[in-house]
Amino acid sequence: MKLHILGCYAATPRTLTNPTSQVLEIRNHMFLIDCGEGTQVQLRKNKIKFSRISHIFISHLHGDHFFGLPGLISTFRLLGREKDLHIYGPEGIKEGITLLLKLGNSWTNFNLIFHELTSKESELIFEDSKVKVNTIPLDHRIYTNGFLFSELPGERKLDVLAVEKYKIDIAFFKRIKQGKDIIMEDGSVMANSELSLDPPQTKHYAYCSDTGFNRDIIPLVKGVDLLYHEATFLETEASLAKKTKHSTARQAAIVAKEAKVSRLILGHFSTRYKSINPFRDEAMEVFINVDLADDGRTFEV
Amino acid sequence: MKLHILGCYAATPRTLTNPTSQVLEIRNHMFLIDCGEGTQVQLRKNKIKFSRISHIFISHLHGDHFFGLPGLISTFRLLGREKDLHIYGPEGIKEGITLLLKLGNSWTNFNLIFHELTSKESELIFEDSKVKVNTIPLDHRIYTNGFLFSELPGERKLDVLAVEKYKIDIAFFKRIKQGKDIIMEDGSVMANSELSLDPPQTKHYAYCSDTGFNRDIIPLVKGVDLLYHEATFLETEASLAKKTKHSTARQAAIVAKEAKVSRLILGHFSTRYKSINPFRDEAMEVFINVDLADDGRTFEV
Repeated sequence: MKLHILGCYAATPRTLTNPTSQVLEIRNHMFLIDCGEGTQVQLRKNKIKFSRISHIFISHLHGDHFFGLPGLISTFRLLGREKDLHIYGPEGIKEGITLLLKLGNSWTNFNLIFHELTSKESELIFEDSKVKVNTIPLDHRIYTNGFLFSELPGERKLDVLAVEKYKIDIAFFKRIKQGKDIIMEDGSVMANSELSLDPPQTKHYAYCSDTGFNRDIIPLVKGVDLLYHEATFLETEASLAKKTKHSTARQAAIVAKEAKVSRLILGHFSTRYKSINPFRDEAMEVFINVDLADDGRTFEV
Repeated sequence: MKLHILGCYAATPRTLTNPTSQVLEIRNHMFLIDCGEGTQVQLRKNKIKFSRISHIFISHLHGDHFFGLPGLISTFRLLGREKDLHIYGPEGIKEGITLLLKLGNSWTNFNLIFHELTSKESELIFEDSKVKVNTIPLDHRIYTNGFLFSELPGERKLDVLAVEKYKIDIAFFKRIKQGKDIIMEDGSVMANSELSLDPPQTKHYAYCSDTGFNRDIIPLVKGVDLLYHEATFLETEASLAKKTKHSTARQAAIVAKEAKVSRLILGHFSTRYKSINPFRDEAMEVFINVDLADDGRTFEV
């Protein structure tokens, strides 16, 4: 699992900083999460192939999280895309995007499939054999969701030494990987646990931006390997954070600590600060494993 | 008069090239012409103050000419703008922009005044005491206008030597600048032409993008000081130009030559070409005074 930060600054694109967008590589999927203005250029700079993106998750409809989407869709069209594109985001996103395409008489040649979200409870919005995605309802000025990306348990691993020892025929390997017991030639049953090993541990990534400090998030991100939590402000601007429904670095760290996550990444920094290092310092007073997002950084799990 | 090219490439923003946008400085106005994705970052890079922009002219509603507009308007709001913002563009632009702002619950604190265009004939869309703007109907796949920006004649200049010679009282200077004759103390009339000089010559800039080759443009841009004409393709792609309603460098030069303009700037280059120099070479076979636009270049008249 690998997280590419394309942009992690609040509010408005600037010469050296980009609004929110990131790509999560997870079990061969390339999930695009939020799509601020300039995301398509950031994808190019970070050498992420446009054709690998089939699912886009939009947290909320503030410009710094989705104004890059109409342009990205148009570029997909110009590149001759044929594959379906799935877009998950708040109700209204379909009307907004389709109106802009209609104004330019620029219909896509590929299917644009919108999954509009309205629930205020966490819900499963994507699932295949490898990965599932659940929403994390957040507390912002408009309807907003974070997203929990979870690997699903893979097949069990063949215990190569064991199958050799018991001379198990190759025809049974698929059943063994599926966790099934084997009936031997003499009619006896060989327990699956004798022939296979546990699959690799599943990994979990939680994305929480934008949100005010909200303890309801904690059970939803419990124990994840990686938590990206917004920290627009430092504690010195705590009242501004409360007013605008954003979080401070300290508050993000409290969520990380109470949810017992493995690692916290801070992002969505207000551009009022000259350096982002104080965000880490403030968070580390509460939670030790803190990293700072920055445009172009990648994080591996 | 000064033209700042913020972006002059066709179709899609890339790492080093930007879609269409430019700023015309004319008699203290800063007119923004088209607003592709990334325009606000280009404004910053080119050190153009956001607060000086009050009028935005959008040629047509293809994404590479207006997908930067919602973000720019949002940034104006975040910067605390209070001044009116006038937007001139095709019918539908108001609905598109206001829907996006509504989705984000991000109404502007300043007046957003849309001037929607529908006419297929050239029309006057802006005029104050110094400048006027007329549309130039273009021939593209969707409804598109170019724009002709014209300085209006200023006041006549006082002929300092003459007013001294005839001992004209300072009280008459304003009338003289307005072109009026003066009645002298002895009752005789002193003709204005004896006391004043012609005002500086007015300058004219014509912006024509996007358009197929179209001779109807010629009388509308007759004799302008500066003509920006799109040249998406070279003659080797003439049939593609015709099909997509774009122009070749040669066709742009024919318009410049037949309209007897002083200087031609080519832009809106397709990103398929490795170098843009062949555009100048091709155009110069027809018209001598050719320049190439490029992101970050400025042209003075």
